[in-house]
Amino acid sequence: MSKNLEELREKLESLLRKVDFTPVYWKDGKVVWLDVTLLPWEEVYRETRDVSRLAEAIKNLEIRGAPAIGVAAGLGVAMAVYNASGSVNELKSEGLKAVSILRSTRPTAYNLFYALDRMERVIRAYEGSSPSELKEEVLGEALSIMIEDLEANLKMGEIGSELITDGETVLTHCNTGSLATSGLGTALGIIKTAWRKGKSIRVIATETRPLLQGARLTAWELKKAGIPFKLVTDNMVGYLFYEGLVDRVIVGADRITIDGYVANKIGTYTIATVAWRHGKPFHVAAPTSTIHPVSYKEKKIVIEHRNPAEVTTILGRLEIAPKGTEALNPAFDVTPPELVTSIITEKGVAWPPYIDSLRRIIGSQ
Amino acid sequence: MSKNLEELREKLESLLRKVDFTPVYWKDGKVVWLDVTLLPWEEVYRETRDVSRLAEAIKNLEIRGAPAIGVAAGLGVAMAVYNASGSVNELKSEGLKAVSILRSTRPTAYNLFYALDRMERVIRAYEGSSPSELKEEVLGEALSIMIEDLEANLKMGEIGSELITDGETVLTHCNTGSLATSGLGTALGIIKTAWRKGKSIRVIATETRPLLQGARLTAWELKKAGIPFKLVTDNMVGYLFYEGLVDRVIVGADRITIDGYVANKIGTYTIATVAWRHGKPFHVAAPTSTIHPVSYKEKKIVIEHRNPAEVTTILGRLEIAPKGTEALNPAFDVTPPELVTSIITEKGVAWPPYIDSLRRIIGSQ
Repeated sequence: MSKNLEELREKLESLLRKVDFTPVYWKDGKVVWLDVTLLPWEEVYRETRDVSRLAEAIKNLEIRGAPAIGVAAGLGVAMAVYNASGSVNELKSEGLKAVSILRSTRPTAYNLFYALDRMERVIRAYEGSSPSELKEEVLGEALSIMIEDLEANLKMGEIGSELITDGETVLTHCNTGSLATSGLGTALGIIKTAWRKGKSIRVIATETRPLLQGARLTAWELKKAGIPFKLVTDNMVGYLFYEGLVDRVIVGADRITIDGYVANKIGTYTIATVAWRHGKPFHVAAPTSTIHPVSYKEKKIVIEHRNPAEVTTILGRLEIAPKGTEALNPAFDVTPPELVTSIITEKGVAWPPYIDSLRRIIGSQ
Repeated sequence: MSKNLEELREKLESLLRKVDFTPVYWKDGKVVWLDVTLLPWEEVYRETRDVSRLAEAIKNLEIRGAPAIGVAAGLGVAMAVYNASGSVNELKSEGLKAVSILRSTRPTAYNLFYALDRMERVIRAYEGSSPSELKEEVLGEALSIMIEDLEANLKMGEIGSELITDGETVLTHCNTGSLATSGLGTALGIIKTAWRKGKSIRVIATETRPLLQGARLTAWELKKAGIPFKLVTDNMVGYLFYEGLVDRVIVGADRITIDGYVANKIGTYTIATVAWRHGKPFHVAAPTSTIHPVSYKEKKIVIEHRNPAEVTTILGRLEIAPKGTEALNPAFDVTPPELVTSIITEKGVAWPPYIDSLRRIIGSQ
């Protein structure tokens, strides 16, 4: 192993000790992940050497959360190259095939494309003739993506927790914790960091139909962390604001345009609208790897529509509608910048107008 | 049987032929109801002569929907008197005991108190000495409440359907159809009437967590009626408006104050807020028996909080959160008048300011 790779591994180990856990990691040429579709009922780790299996895990949400998807995709490309044998060209071909397979898993999360673009760049840029050197470079890049995500989460936690006032009730949507990233989380990472710093906060977690990531995953992380929280159904959000029971909203993002349009889990726009009517701050927390440097008008965000059976059943376990009922199932919605109080990144907090602040932040990368 | 009672029964029969079905009715001294907690899986009718059993059925939502609760409560009091033996005073005492038991079932739906007040008034007002005459008077009042509800629904259907333009997509929340009333429904009754009149409409039905009345009951009624619809999760409402996929909202109400504050199924206020931001009409449909003639400031609406297990499970059938998770479970929220485009009653459409228009409508009773 090269000195560089050894250093990256040590850095990664040291960062992982600072977070509670990671749902996806590299182990001896395999990608290992916690299958979050089985939480909170079972904690099952799965592993593979097969890129198609990993792609399936991303598609069916065993691995989900924009940053975790990005990290898994990076490791997946590394895995394809690492386990291939043959010439540099043969390895490159395996790597690019993996990039292509993983690129078609989910359309909305920008981190996926960010990570795959980086992996592709490293593969294409390699001009040497040593297969083992290429393997190390590719694995190094995947580990770097994971390291940067961990560092971003820790940094966002520091920056974002400053925005939370002692005694507040913070509402969050879906799951944006360790289970959605390489560890700690984005929005939920900020909440956990505020709590660790001794701020007396309470959390409202929305259950997040159809796949209940709030009820299953956020509740699981908040319980683990010992943070007081209440679970609510998604349609209780209006009531909570009307009754003055929420002080602040922090959510994550799957894609942010350079002008501040935020694609995030379905339901986010509804929450933002209610918060806006009640004059309460609505923050988005995401690493810069979530920011797509184009404007919303230049390139409309593609919203993934998933199987309607996710709506007509509960997790495929219980039918809740009459047979033959048709349903809509957009997995994300778009919150326009005028509803977003600020965007918290690892490079600082962006305030409106986002076209200026986000460009400045991206420029400082 | 008195001539008056015979006439009421004939009128009721004739009205019931105009609606698809009724979920609650009188049969030989018993109250019979469709247990809607088992829909859409099973169609089970239950019956009782016992007021406590009927009260339990209302509490655990075997009978639900503000107008249906009112009708069931009226029939329940009639049942108590009808099945009692003894003097007029003994019958009156049974009737008033039933009023008291039924009064404590659910706090928010005004129709319950409207119906019980009427039943109590008839019992107290009886000055004769014939037990059988008292029985007939009390049953007559209960049947009148049911008849008036059916007439109100048919009238609201006529009036409200005029507000729907051909080709529109109408969003509705929870269940406000035959299953929530004595037949046809309020908001859903209007939608069904517009469809029957040949208007080419589409419906969006929100699933309505926690108890999924939209997915289970509204979908069931819309399928029966053959009206094209799509089911969505509650948090998709923002997305639908953002994408321009909804033209109009029509919901029911559990209680309306004289100044136009609308208590309705949890989630209504969230929908109203989104509709308001997008400048789309938001109508409330309810019979005048839902209007409490006091202002919101005079008497704050009591919001029923139900068992948190309704949130941490799906209908008690599937646990969705880690053990020990705490949840909030307000069953209703309040939509303020500034978000309500109009209130459709059987006496006409009320427009803002509601303090004037509703007072005029109530006055015309």
